[in-house]
Amino acid sequence: MAITPPVRFKTLLDFAHDVLDQSGPVVLRHFRKKISVDNKLGGKGFDPVTAADRGAEKIIAREVTRRFPDHGFIGEEFGIRAGDARYRWIVDPIDGTRAFIMGSPLWGTLLGLLDGTSPLLGIMDQPYTGERFWSAEKASYARNAGGKISKIKTRSCKRLADATVTTTHPDLLAAGFERESFERIAATARMTRYGGDCYSYCLLAAGFVDVVIEAGLKGYDIAALIPIIERAGGRVTTWDGRPATDGGRILATGDAQLHDAILKRLAS
Amino acid sequence: MAITPPVRFKTLLDFAHDVLDQSGPVVLRHFRKKISVDNKLGGKGFDPVTAADRGAEKIIAREVTRRFPDHGFIGEEFGIRAGDARYRWIVDPIDGTRAFIMGSPLWGTLLGLLDGTSPLLGIMDQPYTGERFWSAEKASYARNAGGKISKIKTRSCKRLADATVTTTHPDLLAAGFERESFERIAATARMTRYGGDCYSYCLLAAGFVDVVIEAGLKGYDIAALIPIIERAGGRVTTWDGRPATDGGRILATGDAQLHDAILKRLAS
Repeated sequence: MAITPPVRFKTLLDFAHDVLDQSGPVVLRHFRKKISVDNKLGGKGFDPVTAADRGAEKIIAREVTRRFPDHGFIGEEFGIRAGDARYRWIVDPIDGTRAFIMGSPLWGTLLGLLDGTSPLLGIMDQPYTGERFWSAEKASYARNAGGKISKIKTRSCKRLADATVTTTHPDLLAAGFERESFERIAATARMTRYGGDCYSYCLLAAGFVDVVIEAGLKGYDIAALIPIIERAGGRVTTWDGRPATDGGRILATGDAQLHDAILKRLAS
Repeated sequence: MAITPPVRFKTLLDFAHDVLDQSGPVVLRHFRKKISVDNKLGGKGFDPVTAADRGAEKIIAREVTRRFPDHGFIGEEFGIRAGDARYRWIVDPIDGTRAFIMGSPLWGTLLGLLDGTSPLLGIMDQPYTGERFWSAEKASYARNAGGKISKIKTRSCKRLADATVTTTHPDLLAAGFERESFERIAATARMTRYGGDCYSYCLLAAGFVDVVIEAGLKGYDIAALIPIIERAGGRVTTWDGRPATDGGRILATGDAQLHDAILKRLAS
């Protein structure tokens, strides 16, 4: 096997941006496409979100293979390829499928790159609004709906009583420990809002949301978001304080001090 | 008092579009403006959503007074003027203030016109994404984030079991009758999502959401949305089937048959 020269961070990031420029239009072809809800066609019914998911993942996988044939690939739709490679791209073509189905723009395409088990870079792309959030080497950036790019930072929020807390949907938290833990936190918070998926983590990285608490995530739901949040000054771990890369029960905060305080509450 | 010649619908609608073209940039100046949550300044703290609310309402009220001095005006921020006029403009400069505060784009500026107690026209403007939804005389239209204008229609959905149901936040439903009524409906629905405010009603008008159930709305939260939904083929009433113009407990559906079925369930 040929020895691969080391790839510069900028090359990898530019590649990721370029790939998302290609996947966005494919996803958008299926967004807000009207489907009949009355006339069930069984297994033959057209499902826009599955079509969009697969279309985008195929493009991203194809580009990774073409450009970095020795890199691994972890996708939501088509599984894992070269899972023991040092560099592994990790993709969720549509994070927020329920939002996508109901025409809400609060979903995104997630593309991350793992170096071993560490997230090296991540991008969240929202092709409908034109927004994009990503991690550069030492900072995170966002492009807004107007096309303006700016550095993003989490905001300081030391007390839960001042915090805006989100979770995608209470039903995604299992009844019992998970639901009760969330409700204990939510009862103390200044404001709790539902919905959002990856979009909420990006609003946290940009300093408008203080806490995201979720459970049952897959690695591809969170891996790309970790470097975006961390390089914006925030923290992401599991509820017991371990690395979040593999998913599970996830706590993200914009303020490290608040993170520690919530971890303690989640453990009790 | 001078006799005012009748004003054509198109003139009123063009005026409303023009006014929203002016209010949008004012609102956007305050959107995603970072505020400190740690250092409370008491009554002196800057509140971006209030600044945006007032700035937009001032512009809209000024333009109405200038162009249609004999028309009435019902605003969220500055109250009612000429409330006994035949034509009354009704404005919610930011419907979805909590979404606005947390940087989510699921809010909008609502501008409606009442002829007596009937909504004559309505527009929802989302200046961040560039989206707009409005009622023409006999149909409803939307401009999407890419600037494309198209006619919108609600979708057929006869069975609650097939329906996507939204409400802005369960806490906005009073414990007891309101919450229990919603939960009974939600338990049968295919999918329930939280969040959205005016944005959800527009997604309903466009055929992606089937049911919106809310309570505690003011007239200015719903009046502009009624003609958008009705002229797209949907229905909006209170939970006891009366006109929705004054707000209260509101049921909006894309399918008249489903509307009747849910009204029956809400009454039981």
